[in-house]
Amino acid sequence: MTEGVPPTPNINPEILKSRKRAKRKIYSADEFVDGILSGNRTILSQAITLTESLLPEHYDIAQEIIGKCLPHSALSVRIGITGVPGAGKSTFIDAFGMVVLEEGRRLAVLTIDPSSGRTRGSILGDKTRMERLSVHPHAFIRPSPSAGTLGGVARKTRETIILCEAAGFDTILVETVGVGQSETAIHTMVDFFLLLMLAGAGDELQGIKRGIMEMADAIVITKADGQNITAVERTQGMFRNAIAMFPPPGSGRRPEVLTCSSHENRGISEIWKNIRDYIEFTTKTGYLEERRKHQAVERMHDTITEYLSKSFYNNSEVRLLLPEMEKQLFNSSVTSYNAALRLIDKYNKRMHG
Amino acid sequence: MTEGVPPTPNINPEILKSRKRAKRKIYSADEFVDGILSGNRTILSQAITLTESLLPEHYDIAQEIIGKCLPHSALSVRIGITGVPGAGKSTFIDAFGMVVLEEGRRLAVLTIDPSSGRTRGSILGDKTRMERLSVHPHAFIRPSPSAGTLGGVARKTRETIILCEAAGFDTILVETVGVGQSETAIHTMVDFFLLLMLAGAGDELQGIKRGIMEMADAIVITKADGQNITAVERTQGMFRNAIAMFPPPGSGRRPEVLTCSSHENRGISEIWKNIRDYIEFTTKTGYLEERRKHQAVERMHDTITEYLSKSFYNNSEVRLLLPEMEKQLFNSSVTSYNAALRLIDKYNKRMHG
Repeated sequence: MTEGVPPTPNINPEILKSRKRAKRKIYSADEFVDGILSGNRTILSQAITLTESLLPEHYDIAQEIIGKCLPHSALSVRIGITGVPGAGKSTFIDAFGMVVLEEGRRLAVLTIDPSSGRTRGSILGDKTRMERLSVHPHAFIRPSPSAGTLGGVARKTRETIILCEAAGFDTILVETVGVGQSETAIHTMVDFFLLLMLAGAGDELQGIKRGIMEMADAIVITKADGQNITAVERTQGMFRNAIAMFPPPGSGRRPEVLTCSSHENRGISEIWKNIRDYIEFTTKTGYLEERRKHQAVERMHDTITEYLSKSFYNNSEVRLLLPEMEKQLFNSSVTSYNAALRLIDKYNKRMHG
Repeated sequence: MTEGVPPTPNINPEILKSRKRAKRKIYSADEFVDGILSGNRTILSQAITLTESLLPEHYDIAQEIIGKCLPHSALSVRIGITGVPGAGKSTFIDAFGMVVLEEGRRLAVLTIDPSSGRTRGSILGDKTRMERLSVHPHAFIRPSPSAGTLGGVARKTRETIILCEAAGFDTILVETVGVGQSETAIHTMVDFFLLLMLAGAGDELQGIKRGIMEMADAIVITKADGQNITAVERTQGMFRNAIAMFPPPGSGRRPEVLTCSSHENRGISEIWKNIRDYIEFTTKTGYLEERRKHQAVERMHDTITEYLSKSFYNNSEVRLLLPEMEKQLFNSSVTSYNAALRLIDKYNKRMHG
């Protein structure tokens, strides 16, 4: 796709900035793609904004850019990170990212917080939280909007990953808040899922969703510093025992339980080594490639299911009948199956009548 | 519904037996309902067979029976049981059921094995496996067929539960094999989910699906007899530690880890006590009722999703294009989102064109 074209297209980022809306109409999809492939971060940012746009006129060009970047993606290590509230995700990512960058890698950090509904305005917030990464020339930090469109967060994030990979980022971190549906979605687009925990158990776990623990490819107990070290090591032992009681994951490689101090920069490179070992192991066994293929198909089916569901539940007849059906279910005056049938009947009449 | 009608309708079970197919046309839905409400097990069995029937002419009467039984259901304790292969589910259920029956309760055992595709012919097999229950006048054992129709196993099982409850069974056990999708479905129709495990960990867990452990309301380690006792107790301790590291369940009551010997009949009444305590606790907090209401709504949505999905994937155009889309996904020549859109486009054209 890029053979024969100059590595950096003739677009001045300053001019782009001053034009705001008009800029998107001036450059073709190919120019965007060339900019991305050359590693131009301003153009990468603008392409991501285009894919996130809800304006119909942005849709075609955004999809063209993504389609053309797709063959250049898939070479990175994709890592999902979540954790209990207070585990210090941003501080961890800052320290972890620096270890990755010191190896000469290029790192993109995508943050997702579907609960806040935050927009691009929070980029600054994320950048402040990741002090060193935010000023590093080989790091790229980008919050994902919690888009309400088809495919939602998962689709936007997946598309952003494609663009980042095409722009030469070989390590992608996707951060989620740990309490919502987004972990399941993220799990279908990363190679490795890291769960950050705090010392102690029980009450501290209130913050995370059930089922997440069994998704983790590694558990890291953070804040292993000062007087907290003993508690962290005890918790590490407890998690190791707990993990041993879980059914083994499909990778065939049991999750490890590690500890770290982001502030004192201890244990961080061990975590990165653990991930690299995992990638190496699953590359050899073929599991990594299988997982990625499986993920792609799964995401396709998820998008279809979401479309069908939206089409159904946005139907005005269905919306009218639904509260009545729920009421009858609560009163045990209808079975779930017959309530479903009545709604389906309304839907089909509306569609074909 | 039943006021003013005699408790037992004028149907001779022997005559019913000898007529096979014709019997279903002779009796009205009301006669079936009266028979069920009077606790006539032969009529209950025939009504269940009607609801399981794939013949269209059985559909209306089956749904009428279920609808009329519905107000008489919901008074039982509903327990789901699954476990690792070799944990001795049938032997456990036989011993556990006897404890329940000794309290004067009436017990229905529904077994589901979607993998085997077994039919009514296996009733004998189940009955043999549950020696004492199979001859007890207050126990009723019934395998569920793995129906491929809308709602599948979940729907049939739920309908069978309604009929059994209306027939006066106040304790319902639903047994699943522990490896398939059925646990998730069963989880949406029971009050309490019991997981049977064996001593040891790791390899023994190969047999169960990830995520099931976090669904359990209690874990029971079976075969706590003879030389196995030490190993069982060690495993119990390990599971207790593991459970403590899980996020607490919505009930607010942490799952307990118990042990038992079905052969020596030890630990069985403690398990039943644990379940009764749970029911008492969640009845007081209101969680039980909330859970049942939530389950009913969830099952309705699951049925709708399944209908929409079947309608989509059975579409001939979709079936034609799907393998091509999967191939393109494997080659990274299309995004999951665009593959989904192309299939949706085909589907919509077919539906409206």
